Amino acid sequence: MSELWEYSVPGIPDHLFARGTAPMTREEVRVITLSKARLGPGFTVWDVGSGTGSIAVEAARMTPGGKIWAVEKSAGGCRLIRENCSRFGADGVEVVEGEAPEALATLPRPHRVIIGGSGRRLFAILEAVREKILPGGRVVVNAVTLETLCGALDFLGSRWQTEVVQVSLNKSVKKGGSRLMKSFNPVYIISAWERGEDLGG
Amino acid sequence: MSELWEYSVPGIPDHLFARGTAPMTREEVRVITLSKARLGPGFTVWDVGSGTGSIAVEAARMTPGGKIWAVEKSAGGCRLIRENCSRFGADGVEVVEGEAPEALATLPRPHRVIIGGSGRRLFAILEAVREKILPGGRVVVNAVTLETLCGALDFLGSRWQTEVVQVSLNKSVKKGGSRLMKSFNPVYIISAWERGEDLGG
Amino acid sequence: MSELWEYSVPGIPDHLFARGTAPMTREEVRVITLSKARLGPGFTVWDVGSGTGSIAVEAARMTPGGKIWAVEKSAGGCRLIRENCSRFGADGVEVVEGEAPEALATLPRPHRVIIGGSGRRLFAILEAVREKILPGGRVVVNAVTLETLCGALDFLGSRWQTEVVQVSLNKSVKKGGSRLMKSFNPVYIISAWERGEDLGG
Amino acid sequence: MSELWEYSVPGIPDHLFARGTAPMTREEVRVITLSKARLGPGFTVWDVGSGTGSIAVEAARMTPGGKIWAVEKSAGGCRLIRENCSRFGADGVEVVEGEAPEALATLPRPHRVIIGGSGRRLFAILEAVREKILPGGRVVVNAVTLETLCGALDFLGSRWQTEVVQVSLNKSVKKGGSRLMKSFNPVYIISAWERGEDLGG
Repeated sequence: MSELWEYSVPGIPDHLFARGTAPMTREEVRVITLSKARLGPGFTVWDVGSGTGSIAVEAARMTPGGKIWAVEKSAGGCRLIRENCSRFGADGVEVVEGEAPEALATLPRPHRVIIGGSGRRLFAILEAVREKILPGGRVVVNAVTLETLCGALDFLGSRWQTEVVQVSLNKSVKKGGSRLMKSFNPVYIISAWERGEDLGG
Repeated sequence: MSELWEYSVPGIPDHLFARGTAPMTREEVRVITLSKARLGPGFTVWDVGSGTGSIAVEAARMTPGGKIWAVEKSAGGCRLIRENCSRFGADGVEVVEGEAPEALATLPRPHRVIIGGSGRRLFAILEAVREKILPGGRVVVNAVTLETLCGALDFLGSRWQTEVVQVSLNKSVKKGGSRLMKSFNPVYIISAWERGEDLGG
Repeated sequence: MSELWEYSVPGIPDHLFARGTAPMTREEVRVITLSKARLGPGFTVWDVGSGTGSIAVEAARMTPGGKIWAVEKSAGGCRLIRENCSRFGADGVEVVEGEAPEALATLPRPHRVIIGGSGRRLFAILEAVREKILPGGRVVVNAVTLETLCGALDFLGSRWQTEVVQVSLNKSVKKGGSRLMKSFNPVYIISAWERGEDLGG
Repeated sequence: MSELWEYSVPGIPDHLFARGTAPMTREEVRVITLSKARLGPGFTVWDVGSGTGSIAVEAARMTPGGKIWAVEKSAGGCRLIRENCSRFGADGVEVVEGEAPEALATLPRPHRVIIGGSGRRLFAILEAVREKILPGGRVVVNAVTLETLCGALDFLGSRWQTEVVQVSLNKSVKKGGSRLMKSFNPVYIISAWERGEDLGG
């Protein structure tokens, strides 16, 4: 275990990660995302649009014997991911510098796919994921724009079971002796899995 | 591992638990609560107002070599906790039938305390916790009423560092071919720890 | 003015309306909807999917010299609208029993259109609205499903300026001497107007 | 009516007000606040901690024949209030430069009191309000800190009926061709009125 985070639960505080200026999945959203991905021992996981690697680092810690493929197009992002893996002893992460979906072509087939950043290529990425994901697999998309929300539902909703959870967080910050409740932008966590198990969402 | 939940992350779906009519910490709130509690190997954890035991079960799974004391006043609740521990193979849970704070008097000193249900005896419970908690300990209170929120801040805010996170969730439910976004009552997760580490909240 | 609501602001409490079992736009969402519709004196307003008529009643009170066309397909709904208009002295409301978009064909061209219920015919309704709305008009859609949200953005986003506001409300309810914060399902309020004035959303 | 806002509903867009750097009650929260204040013709209204005067301006527009006393301690704030009253033709506003509760002592007794900014003197202000408010009056407190929320409930809850509504808003902003949902800090709107009418909150 890392000296920075010696605990056995996920949810490493945001400020412990090397960040640069990259956007980051907040610790509370991250733990729900990991939960929705239903990670298990030995799993192969794609983390698409890995950013600072905070998801990849925590996924590695929660997936003993597994392998996390952190796909990130920017060189600066890839450096951050490597720094954070080193900082938290996340040995199971492989950093892939490249853009999805092209960068996904040579990766081993995944049990789980987490999509944090997709930009305008969401459909192409989801198509690539659908072709390669293992039977019984799960996809989790974290959306902060309505275009990603609606696009993911459009693609996934007709093919798979889906669940959408919108997470809104307010967190106290001290201001002049009082606790101001500060909001964070909401995240839509869209989970998808093959038809069969219908959880009703 | 349990056959019902063979994964290595927390966040067992609510519907997999035996529930009866007891209120229950929802899976998404539960994973954040476990994270805020910063559980680690070998820890002694009090789960006060354990309800269905969903927190206790997941805490046990995330705390190898540790011991979870699930304190619950109702006999029916205690049966549910035992049933759920058995269902998910949570061996490290000890069920304590009794009312806090009296029921806490004979328990071993905890590294962590999670308070889900406190009713009108919040201050007495927090006083008991403060006396018994180990140095470096953390307390996490899940509040659904303004009285518990304000009371917990009143007691904890003057003695310890605190962070308040309000979690609001909307989840899709199918209705006539559409996805209605259904809200769940918000939960205030109040974390407290001894002065020293100031995270600004 | 009505004796039931003798005030000059909108926001008549929900429980003062005759409701039956029809869904209803909550008072807090209603006042934002009326505001986003930018009602003015003498305006012609269509209220499509009028339900209990709570929007129509308050729109009439806020639109001196105007006319509100309350379109509702169910006969029971139409009775509720008439009852509520009578109850609150909303003289400017005309009830139109029929289904949109067909029922819209013979109505006078509107300055404003508020769409509360659309079901699966959203695109046809929006098409009819686009043909008939007066220059400088505004459309406000209240969406509670992701399908209506995404559909409205798909149709309106490419033709008009749009703004989306998601409103989430928690309201205190007494429970055993405490105030439980109870959530209400979120509503997406989508406003659209002709290109020209870009408010950035 | 003003040329800037020629409509008969409240909810003047934030960007139309002169603002300086003062915090401001957002348009969507403002319309709910005005509604909860149940303004009526001829009412005397105190707007305590008036800031930019956005509440005072809209209250004046919604209170024909009434008088709004806008109390603001900073000279810069008072200039903003006057500028905004002039901009929107709000003739019924009297600006009172001074700090509450002292500045309230000489004002005529109010039908309604809206408290937007109170700082550390909340109890003294509420005490002054309680002494002066007319029978059948209502108080609305907009709280953005937990201290104001808990303090207002502590003072008002034992003396009057209260309702708490927490309003959370997300609003679309264009970002690279997509609509990012941007959150705004939540506001607790606490309404209080004399015992008698119990709305259950």
